[in-house]
Amino acid sequence: MKTYLDCYPCLLRQALSASRRAHASEERQRKILVSTMKELAVLSFDATPPEMALQIHRQVREQTQIDDPYHEDKQQATQQALALYPMLKKRVTGAQDPLETAVRIAIAGNIIDLGVAESYDLEANLERVLEQELAVNHLEALRITLNDAKSILYLADNAGETVFDRLLIEILDRPVTYVVKASPIINDAVLEDAIAAGINRIAEIIDNGSNAPGTLLDYCSSEFREHFNQAELIIAKGQANYESLSGETAPVFFLLQAKCSVIAQDLDVASGDIILKRQ
Amino acid sequence: MKTYLDCYPCLLRQALSASRRAHASEERQRKILVSTMKELAVLSFDATPPEMALQIHRQVREQTQIDDPYHEDKQQATQQALALYPMLKKRVTGAQDPLETAVRIAIAGNIIDLGVAESYDLEANLERVLEQELAVNHLEALRITLNDAKSILYLADNAGETVFDRLLIEILDRPVTYVVKASPIINDAVLEDAIAAGINRIAEIIDNGSNAPGTLLDYCSSEFREHFNQAELIIAKGQANYESLSGETAPVFFLLQAKCSVIAQDLDVASGDIILKRQ
Repeated sequence: MKTYLDCYPCLLRQALSASRRAHASEERQRKILVSTMKELAVLSFDATPPEMALQIHRQVREQTQIDDPYHEDKQQATQQALALYPMLKKRVTGAQDPLETAVRIAIAGNIIDLGVAESYDLEANLERVLEQELAVNHLEALRITLNDAKSILYLADNAGETVFDRLLIEILDRPVTYVVKASPIINDAVLEDAIAAGINRIAEIIDNGSNAPGTLLDYCSSEFREHFNQAELIIAKGQANYESLSGETAPVFFLLQAKCSVIAQDLDVASGDIILKRQ
Repeated sequence: MKTYLDCYPCLLRQALSASRRAHASEERQRKILVSTMKELAVLSFDATPPEMALQIHRQVREQTQIDDPYHEDKQQATQQALALYPMLKKRVTGAQDPLETAVRIAIAGNIIDLGVAESYDLEANLERVLEQELAVNHLEALRITLNDAKSILYLADNAGETVFDRLLIEILDRPVTYVVKASPIINDAVLEDAIAAGINRIAEIIDNGSNAPGTLLDYCSSEFREHFNQAELIIAKGQANYESLSGETAPVFFLLQAKCSVIAQDLDVASGDIILKRQ
């Protein structure tokens, strides 16, 4: 997906937010704002939002000397999600259609996104997503592809969301390779976050060799790209994976919430809509 | 009020919004975004938000060659407000405390603000503001000052909001001088908008000699400054008037909605709160 002009103010807000989470002084925050504007002014208009975010957040890390401004937020999100796990597990096992319920729960977890907004109401969002109609609903196609696939490549998004992914993985009944980022970017999950969510008990965890949001294949390791190219079924979580992979030819199912007007417009849905879309 | 760092992404969003309302091509919008970032990067950090907005919107007008990107929005807002006028008039005349009801209506009209957000729900906001507790409530001080004042200087904010101001002015029972902008900025009222709202039937209309949002005294005409310095009671509507006059010593009562987190923080209230604050 291309970068829309609305992404520029949003990326500037993100730089400020990340600086504050890194406990930068106000003077440092100002400097970061100015250098972010300079950077945004020269970045190619052909870059995707994840490519832009990669540069902007790299710059914040360099200027604050903090490698992981969202570390505490990620730990809190995982704890909050783990507290919901037993209740959610019962909802899946008791559901008429466990796959649909687990897919909805995985999509609900996608609200845990500190790139798009400063905060979220996880439990309210969960109840909404469990009931809401899917604006794009390729569930039957997913069911058929699942039946034929010998294994699944699962591209993670955010820490905490990982717990919701676990509930889906637990009913897939296929070997799953769970892909996290190689090092921190925004509140995206890294290995530590996947382990904290208990993913290591049910799937193999690898990283994609990159710390760009989403999956920028050119930035990923050759090992990951091999996984990607050979996959029979790829589940890709969240906006950044859609933004970076919507142009690729691959057996991808995107599971996400359209949390901003830009992605809603690209998907031809409304803001707040929930999506299960086959590539 | 000083500019907070959160104002930068907001001003960038405003530049994009104004460019679109001026029907700029996407290529032109991109150029405006880039030059806005360059401008924001060099503007003094000591400037108030209205001073910054003045530069940003001037630049959009120059680059789009459109003097009034919000012209149509302003006309629509006035028509929408005029359609509500008869019902609101009945509410004021039938109220137990007509001054309080008219003040609330004037504050409700302040939701018509296309700087802070892209859209608003006027009727829903009106019902809320008529019932909501004032987070800062200097109504009794206003009542006393009104009793003693021989005349009132009323600093307008947005077109459409003008109709709501009219309902307040109609019960003040004092000569009112209604102050609009000298030429267009965002959706702020100019002479044409005040007349369309019927203000000319009940007050003298003057302009402040400036097209900055709010009231930047250094940018205003000497004629207006004389009015300001001699006023016994000044009613100042909206965020930008608060942002530009909160540091002045003058008999000002600010009537506004705290529509963004920045002004809410400065006023020590919550976003969405309604304010009647004596200087």
